Amino acid sequence: MSTVGNSTNIFWHECAVGNIDRQKLLNQKGCVVWITGLSGSGKSTLACSLGRELHSRGKLSYVLDGDNLRHGLNKNLGFSAEDRTENIRRVGEVGKLFADAGLICIASLISPYRKDRDACRGMLPDGSFIEVFMNMPLEVCEERDVKGLYKLARAGKIKGFTGIDDPYEPPLNCEIELKMADGICPTPIDMAGKVASYLGEKGFLHYE
Amino acid sequence: MSTVGNSTNIFWHECAVGNIDRQKLLNQKGCVVWITGLSGSGKSTLACSLGRELHSRGKLSYVLDGDNLRHGLNKNLGFSAEDRTENIRRVGEVGKLFADAGLICIASLISPYRKDRDACRGMLPDGSFIEVFMNMPLEVCEERDVKGLYKLARAGKIKGFTGIDDPYEPPLNCEIELKMADGICPTPIDMAGKVASYLGEKGFLHYE
Repeated sequence: MSTVGNSTNIFWHECAVGNIDRQKLLNQKGCVVWITGLSGSGKSTLACSLGRELHSRGKLSYVLDGDNLRHGLNKNLGFSAEDRTENIRRVGEVGKLFADAGLICIASLISPYRKDRDACRGMLPDGSFIEVFMNMPLEVCEERDVKGLYKLARAGKIKGFTGIDDPYEPPLNCEIELKMADGICPTPIDMAGKVASYLGEKGFLHYE
Repeated sequence: MSTVGNSTNIFWHECAVGNIDRQKLLNQKGCVVWITGLSGSGKSTLACSLGRELHSRGKLSYVLDGDNLRHGLNKNLGFSAEDRTENIRRVGEVGKLFADAGLICIASLISPYRKDRDACRGMLPDGSFIEVFMNMPLEVCEERDVKGLYKLARAGKIKGFTGIDDPYEPPLNCEIELKMADGICPTPIDMAGKVASYLGEKGFLHYE
């Protein structure tokens, strides 16, 4: 029995079927691929492309998209510093559950602050949090402006927009960095291939 | 672009790999088995036993245990009426994600209020929320008192304890009801078998 956070009298229940059993069943190992970067840097595109690549190899993955989760689990959160932190914490906790369930969980969120990402890393077993930094220049993201949000932020109609009037803290020790080469962005397929290769090398794509 | 809850400027991203693809890969259909009942009614026991039964059939399931989640996703929640509702809402939202990922998600929570359970039912596609009512008499649960909580509640050391000084609202239209017969509780294996049979009949254990 324990006291945790705001809860008391909480027990921990162990189940007979554990994560090893699920990994064997799926012939893969659960993990969280955490994609971070500016709005418009291609996070969702990579998440989809990676999901497709893994599916083509018979692997089970699931995308946790920051925007989509704000329609459900995180719909009672806004964009204050506190709410952003809670938003990321919940995604981290859900990612942890998916990894424990044996899935390759692909989380796609701006997640601008290092401490919030590191807190999520700390939830996962060593090596199973794979931080992917979409290192695209602000100018490129702003020029794309797929959602028209940079325009609104520049016009002052959105406050606290990452990259404009709120900072993005780049990872110091991410597992994978994706960036332009000779002024050209890598294709979604190339980016997904790079992440999938990493997962393969680290043994996540089969159970041994 | 939409305004949802406390969020604005939120888009919805569709991915190329969808829930049908994952169901085919797993040869099963995602759903939420929601186990409700008093403390000590055997929810966690059934959840484990059902997980074992499904695993033995090569099916992927994952248990969301109310107590366990209070160590993680829900650790910033207490037991006020508001926090209980939010606790259940979050588990419902996570269950929805797991079902969408193709898993048979087994949620095990007292979830005493009908409106909270019905809200979770409303999140899932028709037919894929399977409410299992552990209809065990309070006296039986209290006599078991595995966690010693009834004793504390009777002594007034826990306030708002379901069944003692807080109500349990039994389901009106649950899919499965498990209860004693001739004064004997069904065994965990029998109970798991009954739920697994239901899932089989409803087509959740294969993809067609």
